[in-house]
Amino acid sequence: MYRLFGMSGSGNCHKVRLLLEQLGLDYRWQEVDVVGGATREPAFLALNPNGRVPLLELEPGVLLPESNAILCYLADGTPLWPTERLARARTLQWLFFEQYTHEPAIAVARFIRQFLPPDHPRRQELPRLLDRGRAALDVMEQHLSTQPFFVGDRYSIADIGLFPYTRAADEGGFDLAGYPAIGAWFRRVEAQPGFVAMEKPGAPR
Amino acid sequence: MYRLFGMSGSGNCHKVRLLLEQLGLDYRWQEVDVVGGATREPAFLALNPNGRVPLLELEPGVLLPESNAILCYLADGTPLWPTERLARARTLQWLFFEQYTHEPAIAVARFIRQFLPPDHPRRQELPRLLDRGRAALDVMEQHLSTQPFFVGDRYSIADIGLFPYTRAADEGGFDLAGYPAIGAWFRRVEAQPGFVAMEKPGAPR
Repeated sequence: MYRLFGMSGSGNCHKVRLLLEQLGLDYRWQEVDVVGGATREPAFLALNPNGRVPLLELEPGVLLPESNAILCYLADGTPLWPTERLARARTLQWLFFEQYTHEPAIAVARFIRQFLPPDHPRRQELPRLLDRGRAALDVMEQHLSTQPFFVGDRYSIADIGLFPYTRAADEGGFDLAGYPAIGAWFRRVEAQPGFVAMEKPGAPR
Repeated sequence: MYRLFGMSGSGNCHKVRLLLEQLGLDYRWQEVDVVGGATREPAFLALNPNGRVPLLELEPGVLLPESNAILCYLADGTPLWPTERLARARTLQWLFFEQYTHEPAIAVARFIRQFLPPDHPRRQELPRLLDRGRAALDVMEQHLSTQPFFVGDRYSIADIGLFPYTRAADEGGFDLAGYPAIGAWFRRVEAQPGFVAMEKPGAPR
Protein backbone atom coordinates (compact mmCIF):
# COMPACT_ATOMS: atom_id res chain seq x y z
CA MET A 1 0.00 0.00 0.00
CA TYR A 2 1.24 3.48 -0.81
CA ARG A 3 1.75 6.01 1.96
CA LEU A 4 1.22 9.65 1.00
CA PHE A 5 2.78 12.32 3.19
CA GLY A 6 0.70 15.44 2.61
CA MET A 7 -0.92 18.57 3.98
CA SER A 8 -4.70 18.89 3.80
CA GLY A 9 -5.65 21.93 1.76
CA SER A 10 -2.46 21.80 -0.34
CA GLY A 11 -3.23 21.59 -4.05
CA ASN A 12 0.08 19.89 -4.78
CA CYS A 13 -0.89 17.16 -2.33
CA HIS A 14 -4.48 17.01 -3.50
CA LYS A 15 -3.41 16.26 -7.09
CA VAL A 16 -1.84 13.04 -5.92
CA ARG A 17 -4.80 12.10 -3.75
CA LEU A 18 -7.18 12.75 -6.66
CA LEU A 19 -5.17 10.48 -8.96
CA LEU A 20 -4.86 7.72 -6.34
CA GLU A 21 -8.63 7.84 -5.85
CA GLN A 22 -9.35 7.84 -9.58
CA LEU A 23 -7.02 4.90 -10.19
CA GLY A 24 -8.57 3.04 -7.24
CA LEU A 25 -5.18 2.49 -5.62
CA ASP A 26 -4.80 1.66 -1.93
CA TYR A 27 -3.04 4.34 0.05
CA ARG A 28 -2.73 5.77 3.49
CA TRP A 29 -2.68 9.55 3.97
CA GLN A 30 -0.18 10.78 6.54
CA GLU A 31 -0.83 14.37 7.56
CA VAL A 32 2.28 16.57 7.85
CA ASP A 33 2.12 19.87 9.73
CA VAL A 34 3.94 21.98 7.15
CA VAL A 35 2.89 25.35 8.59
CA GLY A 36 4.11 24.16 12.01
CA GLY A 37 7.54 23.33 10.57
CA ALA A 38 7.38 19.52 10.38
CA THR A 39 8.97 19.39 6.90
CA ARG A 40 12.10 21.15 8.25
CA GLU A 41 12.65 18.61 11.01
CA PRO A 42 15.44 16.02 10.68
CA ALA A 43 13.03 13.07 10.64
CA PHE A 44 11.25 14.43 7.59
CA LEU A 45 14.42 15.68 5.86
CA ALA A 46 15.76 12.13 6.08
CA LEU A 47 12.80 11.12 3.88
CA ASN A 48 12.95 14.12 1.53
CA PRO A 49 16.07 16.31 1.73
CA ASN A 50 14.18 19.02 -0.18
CA GLY A 51 11.72 19.30 2.73
CA ARG A 52 8.46 19.34 0.81
CA VAL A 53 5.19 17.50 0.50
CA PRO A 54 3.66 15.63 -1.22
CA LEU A 55 5.98 12.70 -0.78
CA LEU A 56 4.91 9.23 -1.86
CA GLU A 57 6.31 6.14 -0.19
CA LEU A 58 6.21 3.44 -2.88
CA GLU A 59 7.48 0.77 -0.50
CA PRO A 60 9.35 1.03 2.81
CA GLY A 61 12.39 3.23 2.19
CA VAL A 62 11.54 4.12 -1.43
CA LEU A 63 10.26 7.70 -1.55
CA LEU A 64 9.28 9.83 -4.51
CA PRO A 65 8.87 13.63 -4.13
CA GLU A 66 7.60 16.26 -6.61
CA SER A 67 3.85 16.19 -7.14
CA ASN A 68 3.96 16.05 -10.92
CA ALA A 69 6.64 13.35 -11.03
CA ILE A 70 4.40 11.33 -8.71
CA LEU A 71 1.47 11.82 -11.11
CA CYS A 72 3.61 10.50 -13.99
CA TYR A 73 4.78 7.53 -11.93
CA LEU A 74 1.29 6.53 -10.83
CA ALA A 75 -0.29 7.09 -14.24
CA ASP A 76 2.41 5.16 -16.12
CA GLY A 77 0.70 2.44 -18.10
CA THR A 78 -2.78 3.94 -17.66
CA PRO A 79 -4.79 6.02 -20.17
CA LEU A 80 -4.19 9.08 -17.97
CA TRP A 81 -0.67 9.54 -19.33
CA PRO A 82 -0.70 9.23 -23.12
CA THR A 83 2.10 7.18 -24.67
CA GLU A 84 2.19 8.75 -28.15
CA ARG A 85 5.37 10.81 -28.27
CA LEU A 86 3.94 14.28 -28.88
CA ALA A 87 0.91 13.78 -26.62
CA ARG A 88 3.25 12.63 -23.86
CA ALA A 89 5.37 15.77 -24.34
CA ARG A 90 2.26 17.97 -24.38
CA THR A 91 1.18 16.44 -21.06
CA LEU A 92 4.57 17.32 -19.62
CA GLN A 93 4.38 20.78 -21.21
CA TRP A 94 1.28 21.53 -19.15
CA LEU A 95 2.69 19.96 -16.00
CA PHE A 96 5.82 22.14 -16.28
CA PHE A 97 3.62 25.16 -17.05
CA GLU A 98 1.77 24.38 -13.83
CA GLN A 99 4.86 24.23 -11.63
CA TYR A 100 6.77 27.11 -13.23
CA THR A 101 4.15 29.66 -14.31
CA HIS A 102 0.85 28.81 -12.60
CA GLU A 103 1.54 27.50 -9.10
CA PRO A 104 4.13 30.13 -8.05
CA ALA A 105 1.49 32.83 -8.70
CA ILE A 106 -1.91 31.28 -8.03
CA ALA A 107 -1.04 28.91 -5.20
CA VAL A 108 1.26 31.39 -3.51
CA ALA A 109 -1.45 34.11 -3.54
CA ARG A 110 -3.84 31.63 -1.91
CA PHE A 111 -1.21 30.60 0.64
CA ILE A 112 -0.58 34.21 1.65
CA ARG A 113 -4.30 34.97 1.98
CA GLN A 114 -5.41 31.74 3.61
CA PHE A 115 -2.47 30.52 5.68
CA LEU A 116 -0.63 33.68 6.85
CA PRO A 117 -1.88 36.31 9.34
CA PRO A 118 -3.66 39.35 7.78
CA ASP A 119 -0.80 41.69 8.74
CA HIS A 120 1.97 39.52 7.31
CA PRO A 121 4.53 41.47 5.21
CA ARG A 122 4.23 38.96 2.34
CA ARG A 123 0.81 40.50 1.54
CA GLN A 124 2.73 43.14 -0.41
CA GLU A 125 3.52 40.40 -2.97
CA LEU A 126 -0.17 40.00 -3.81
CA PRO A 127 -0.57 42.59 -6.62
CA ARG A 128 2.30 41.10 -8.62
CA LEU A 129 1.08 37.55 -7.95
CA LEU A 130 -2.43 38.47 -9.13
CA ASP A 131 -1.03 39.94 -12.36
CA ARG A 132 1.06 36.86 -13.04
CA GLY A 133 -1.74 34.50 -12.07
CA ARG A 134 -4.21 36.21 -14.40
CA ALA A 135 -1.70 35.83 -17.23
CA ALA A 136 -1.54 32.08 -16.50
CA LEU A 137 -5.34 31.84 -16.40
CA ASP A 138 -5.50 33.69 -19.74
CA VAL A 139 -3.24 31.06 -21.32
CA MET A 140 -5.46 28.28 -19.95
CA GLU A 141 -8.69 30.01 -21.03
CA GLN A 142 -7.39 30.47 -24.58
CA HIS A 143 -6.35 26.81 -24.77
CA LEU A 144 -9.59 25.44 -23.29
CA SER A 145 -11.60 27.54 -25.73
CA THR A 146 -10.39 25.17 -28.45
CA GLN A 147 -10.48 21.77 -26.76
CA PRO A 148 -12.20 20.08 -23.80
CA PHE A 149 -9.09 18.97 -21.88
CA PHE A 150 -5.47 20.10 -21.83
CA VAL A 151 -4.16 17.35 -24.07
CA GLY A 152 -6.48 16.56 -26.94
CA ASP A 153 -9.96 15.35 -26.16
CA ARG A 154 -9.10 13.15 -23.20
CA TYR A 155 -8.78 13.71 -19.47
CA SER A 156 -5.17 13.18 -18.37
CA ILE A 157 -2.74 13.95 -15.59
CA ALA A 158 -2.28 17.39 -17.22
CA ASP A 159 -5.84 18.17 -16.09
CA ILE A 160 -5.23 16.64 -12.67
CA GLY A 161 -2.06 18.71 -12.23
CA LEU A 162 -3.78 21.96 -13.13
CA PHE A 163 -7.12 21.41 -11.44
CA PRO A 164 -6.66 21.85 -7.66
CA TYR A 165 -5.08 25.30 -7.53
CA THR A 166 -7.16 26.62 -10.43
CA ARG A 167 -10.38 25.46 -8.76
CA ALA A 168 -9.27 27.19 -5.54
CA ALA A 169 -7.99 30.35 -7.26
CA ASP A 170 -10.85 32.39 -5.76
CA GLU A 171 -9.28 31.75 -2.33
CA GLY A 172 -6.21 33.61 -3.64
CA GLY A 173 -8.27 36.59 -4.74
CA PHE A 174 -8.83 35.66 -8.40
CA ASP A 175 -12.23 36.30 -9.95
CA LEU A 176 -12.97 33.37 -12.26
CA ALA A 177 -16.16 34.91 -13.68
CA GLY A 178 -14.29 36.07 -16.78
CA TYR A 179 -13.05 32.58 -17.61
CA PRO A 180 -16.00 30.60 -19.03
CA ALA A 181 -13.90 27.93 -20.73
CA ILE A 182 -12.11 27.23 -17.45
CA GLY A 183 -15.52 27.03 -15.73
CA ALA A 184 -16.76 24.48 -18.27
CA TRP A 185 -13.54 22.49 -17.80
CA PHE A 186 -14.13 22.46 -14.00
CA ARG A 187 -17.48 20.74 -14.64
CA ARG A 188 -15.92 18.19 -17.00
CA VAL A 189 -13.18 17.36 -14.47
CA GLU A 190 -15.65 17.13 -11.59
CA ALA A 191 -17.72 14.67 -13.64
CA GLN A 192 -14.84 12.18 -13.95
CA PRO A 193 -15.25 8.85 -12.11
CA GLY A 194 -13.70 8.87 -8.66
CA PHE A 195 -13.42 12.65 -8.47
CA VAL A 196 -12.81 14.05 -4.97
CA ALA A 197 -12.78 17.77 -4.14
CA MET A 198 -10.03 19.42 -2.13
CA GLU A 199 -10.96 20.41 1.42
CA LYS A 200 -11.02 24.12 2.24
CA PRO A 201 -8.06 25.50 4.23
CA GLY A 202 -8.56 24.78 7.92
CA ALA A 203 -11.45 22.38 7.35
CA PRO A 204 -11.25 19.10 9.26
CA ARG A 205 -10.75 16.01 7.14
CA MET B 1 15.03 20.26 -39.34
CA TYR B 2 14.09 21.61 -35.92
CA ARG B 3 13.95 25.34 -35.32
CA LEU B 4 14.78 26.47 -31.78
CA PHE B 5 13.60 29.90 -30.69
CA GLY B 6 15.92 30.93 -27.89
CA MET B 7 17.89 33.62 -26.13
CA SER B 8 21.67 33.29 -25.96
CA GLY B 9 22.82 33.16 -22.33
CA SER B 10 19.51 31.65 -21.12
CA GLY B 11 20.10 28.39 -19.30
CA ASN B 12 16.60 27.16 -20.14
CA CYS B 13 17.42 27.61 -23.83
CA HIS B 14 20.93 26.22 -23.48
CA LYS B 15 19.60 22.94 -22.06
CA VAL B 16 17.79 22.29 -25.31
CA ARG B 17 20.76 23.30 -27.45
CA LEU B 18 23.03 21.01 -25.42
CA LEU B 19 20.72 18.04 -25.94
CA LEU B 20 20.28 18.75 -29.67
CA GLU B 21 24.07 18.86 -30.03
CA GLN B 22 24.58 15.69 -28.02
CA LEU B 23 21.97 13.80 -30.00
CA GLY B 24 23.48 15.09 -33.25
CA LEU B 25 20.14 16.46 -34.43
CA ASP B 26 19.85 19.10 -37.13
CA TYR B 27 18.44 22.38 -35.91
CA ARG B 28 18.47 26.07 -36.60
CA TRP B 29 18.80 28.53 -33.72
CA GLN B 30 16.56 31.57 -33.98
CA GLU B 31 17.60 34.32 -31.59
CA VAL B 32 14.72 36.06 -29.76
CA ASP B 33 15.28 39.41 -28.05
CA VAL B 34 13.55 38.59 -24.78
CA VAL B 35 14.96 41.52 -22.81
CA GLY B 36 13.81 43.83 -25.62
CA GLY B 37 10.25 42.50 -25.37
CA ALA B 38 10.06 40.25 -28.44
CA THR B 39 8.28 37.43 -26.55
CA ARG B 40 5.41 39.81 -25.67
CA GLU B 41 4.75 40.77 -29.30
CA PRO B 42 1.73 39.34 -31.13
CA ALA B 43 3.84 37.46 -33.69
CA PHE B 44 5.58 35.50 -30.93
CA LEU B 45 2.46 35.05 -28.79
CA ALA B 46 0.82 33.41 -31.79
CA LEU B 47 3.54 30.75 -31.58
CA ASN B 48 3.57 30.46 -27.77
CA PRO B 49 0.68 32.11 -25.90
CA ASN B 50 2.72 31.82 -22.69
CA GLY B 51 5.33 34.17 -24.19
CA ARG B 52 8.48 32.29 -23.25
CA VAL B 53 11.54 30.72 -24.79
CA PRO B 54 12.80 28.13 -25.46
CA LEU B 55 10.23 27.10 -28.02
CA LEU B 56 10.91 24.21 -30.38
CA GLU B 57 9.31 24.04 -33.80
CA LEU B 58 9.02 20.33 -34.57
CA GLU B 59 7.63 20.98 -38.03
CA PRO B 60 5.97 24.04 -39.55
CA GLY B 61 3.11 25.01 -37.22
CA VAL B 62 3.86 22.40 -34.52
CA LEU B 63 5.46 24.14 -31.56
CA LEU B 64 6.51 22.75 -28.20
CA PRO B 65 7.29 25.10 -25.27
CA GLU B 66 8.69 24.37 -21.78
CA SER B 67 12.38 23.53 -21.73
CA ASN B 68 12.08 20.31 -19.75
CA ALA B 69 9.13 19.00 -21.81
CA ILE B 70 11.29 19.61 -24.89
CA LEU B 71 14.12 17.60 -23.30
CA CYS B 72 11.73 14.69 -22.70
CA TYR B 73 10.40 14.89 -26.25
CA LEU B 74 13.82 14.93 -27.87
CA ALA B 75 15.27 12.24 -25.59
CA ASP B 76 12.32 9.89 -26.03
CA GLY B 77 13.65 6.59 -27.29
CA THR B 78 17.28 7.44 -26.46
CA PRO B 79 19.35 6.30 -23.45
CA LEU B 80 19.17 9.86 -22.08
CA TRP B 81 15.62 9.31 -20.77
CA PRO B 82 15.44 5.99 -18.93
CA THR B 83 12.38 3.86 -19.64
CA GLU B 84 12.26 1.83 -16.42
CA ARG B 85 9.30 3.15 -14.46
CA LEU B 86 11.00 4.40 -11.30
CA ALA B 87 14.09 5.71 -13.13
CA ARG B 88 11.79 7.61 -15.49
CA ALA B 89 9.96 9.12 -12.51
CA ARG B 90 13.25 10.01 -10.79
CA THR B 91 14.34 11.82 -13.97
CA LEU B 92 11.13 13.82 -13.86
CA GLN B 93 11.56 14.37 -10.11
CA TRP B 94 14.83 16.21 -10.77
CA LEU B 95 13.44 18.10 -13.76
CA PHE B 96 10.52 19.36 -11.63
CA PHE B 97 12.95 20.16 -8.80
CA GLU B 98 14.89 22.24 -11.33
CA GLN B 99 11.90 24.26 -12.50
CA TYR B 100 10.20 24.69 -9.13
CA THR B 101 12.99 24.94 -6.53
CA HIS B 102 16.27 25.59 -8.35
CA GLU B 103 15.64 27.84 -11.36
CA PRO B 104 13.37 30.41 -9.61
CA ALA B 105 16.20 31.09 -7.14
CA ILE B 106 19.49 30.48 -8.96
CA ALA B 107 18.53 31.62 -12.46
CA VAL B 108 16.56 34.61 -11.21
CA ALA B 109 19.50 35.81 -9.06
CA ARG B 110 21.72 35.57 -12.14
CA PHE B 111 19.14 37.38 -14.29
CA ILE B 112 18.92 40.26 -11.80
CA ARG B 113 22.70 40.60 -11.54
CA GLN B 114 23.58 40.10 -15.20
CA PHE B 115 20.63 41.42 -17.19
CA LEU B 116 19.16 44.29 -15.11
CA PRO B 117 20.78 47.68 -14.37
CA PRO B 118 22.73 47.88 -11.08
CA ASP B 119 20.17 50.22 -9.51
CA HIS B 120 17.14 48.10 -10.41
CA PRO B 121 14.67 47.66 -7.49
CA ARG B 122 14.60 43.89 -8.01
CA ARG B 123 18.09 43.74 -6.46
CA GLN B 124 16.32 43.73 -3.09
CA GLU B 125 15.16 40.19 -3.91
CA LEU B 126 18.76 38.92 -3.95
CA PRO B 127 19.26 37.98 -0.26
CA ARG B 128 16.16 35.76 -0.27
CA LEU B 129 17.08 34.25 -3.65
CA LEU B 130 20.60 33.47 -2.41
CA ASP B 131 19.19 31.71 0.67
CA ARG B 132 16.78 29.66 -1.40
CA GLY B 133 19.40 28.91 -4.07
CA ARG B 134 21.90 27.68 -1.48
CA ALA B 135 19.22 25.35 -0.10
CA ALA B 136 18.74 23.90 -3.61
CA LEU B 137 22.50 23.51 -4.06
CA ASP B 138 22.67 21.73 -0.69
CA VAL B 139 20.09 19.19 -1.88
CA MET B 140 22.11 18.60 -5.06
CA GLU B 141 25.43 18.34 -3.19
CA GLN B 142 23.99 15.77 -0.79
CA HIS B 143 22.61 13.70 -3.67
CA LEU B 144 25.77 13.87 -5.79
CA SER B 145 27.86 12.81 -2.80
CA THR B 146 26.29 9.36 -3.20
CA GLN B 147 26.16 8.90 -6.99
CA PRO B 148 27.85 10.28 -10.12
CA PHE B 149 24.76 11.55 -11.94
CA PHE B 150 21.27 12.56 -10.84
CA VAL B 151 19.58 9.31 -11.83
CA GLY B 152 21.69 6.29 -11.00
CA ASP B 153 25.08 5.95 -12.62
CA ARG B 154 24.15 7.30 -16.05
CA TYR B 155 24.09 10.72 -17.63
CA SER B 156 20.51 11.69 -18.50
CA ILE B 157 18.29 14.66 -19.25
CA ALA B 158 18.07 15.21 -15.47
CA ASP B 159 21.74 16.24 -15.62
CA ILE B 160 21.17 18.31 -18.76
CA GLY B 161 18.24 20.10 -17.13
CA LEU B 162 20.20 20.97 -13.99
CA PHE B 163 23.56 21.76 -15.57
CA PRO B 164 23.35 25.19 -17.26
CA TYR B 165 22.10 27.33 -14.38
CA THR B 166 24.16 25.44 -11.79
CA ARG B 167 27.32 25.90 -13.85
CA ALA B 168 26.53 29.64 -14.13
CA ALA B 169 25.47 30.05 -10.47
CA ASP B 170 28.58 32.15 -9.76
CA GLU B 171 27.13 34.80 -12.11
CA GLY B 172 24.19 35.00 -9.68
CA GLY B 173 26.44 35.53 -6.67
CA PHE B 174 26.73 31.93 -5.46
CA ASP B 175 30.09 30.66 -4.24
CA LEU B 176 30.45 27.07 -5.44
CA ALA B 177 33.70 26.44 -3.55
CA GLY B 178 31.79 24.66 -0.79
CA TYR B 179 30.18 22.18 -3.17
CA PRO B 180 32.86 19.65 -4.17
CA ALA B 181 30.43 16.97 -5.35
CA ILE B 182 28.77 19.48 -7.66
CA GLY B 183 32.22 20.50 -8.94
CA ALA B 184 33.08 16.87 -9.73
CA TRP B 185 29.72 16.47 -11.48
CA PHE B 186 30.50 19.55 -13.64
CA ARG B 187 33.63 17.78 -14.88
CA ARG B 188 31.71 14.57 -15.62
CA VAL B 189 29.04 16.46 -17.57
CA GLU B 190 31.63 18.51 -19.47
CA ALA B 191 33.35 15.27 -20.50
CA GLN B 192 30.22 13.92 -22.24
CA PRO B 193 30.42 13.59 -26.05
CA GLY B 194 29.04 16.60 -27.86
CA PHE B 195 29.13 18.86 -24.80
CA VAL B 196 28.85 22.59 -25.54
CA ALA B 197 29.21 25.32 -22.91
CA MET B 198 26.72 28.15 -22.51
CA GLU B 199 27.91 31.56 -23.67
CA LYS B 200 28.35 34.27 -21.03
CA PRO B 201 25.63 36.95 -20.83
CA GLY B 202 26.24 39.59 -23.47
CA ALA B 203 28.86 37.53 -25.30
CA PRO B 204 28.48 37.35 -29.08
CA ARG B 205 27.54 33.94 -30.43
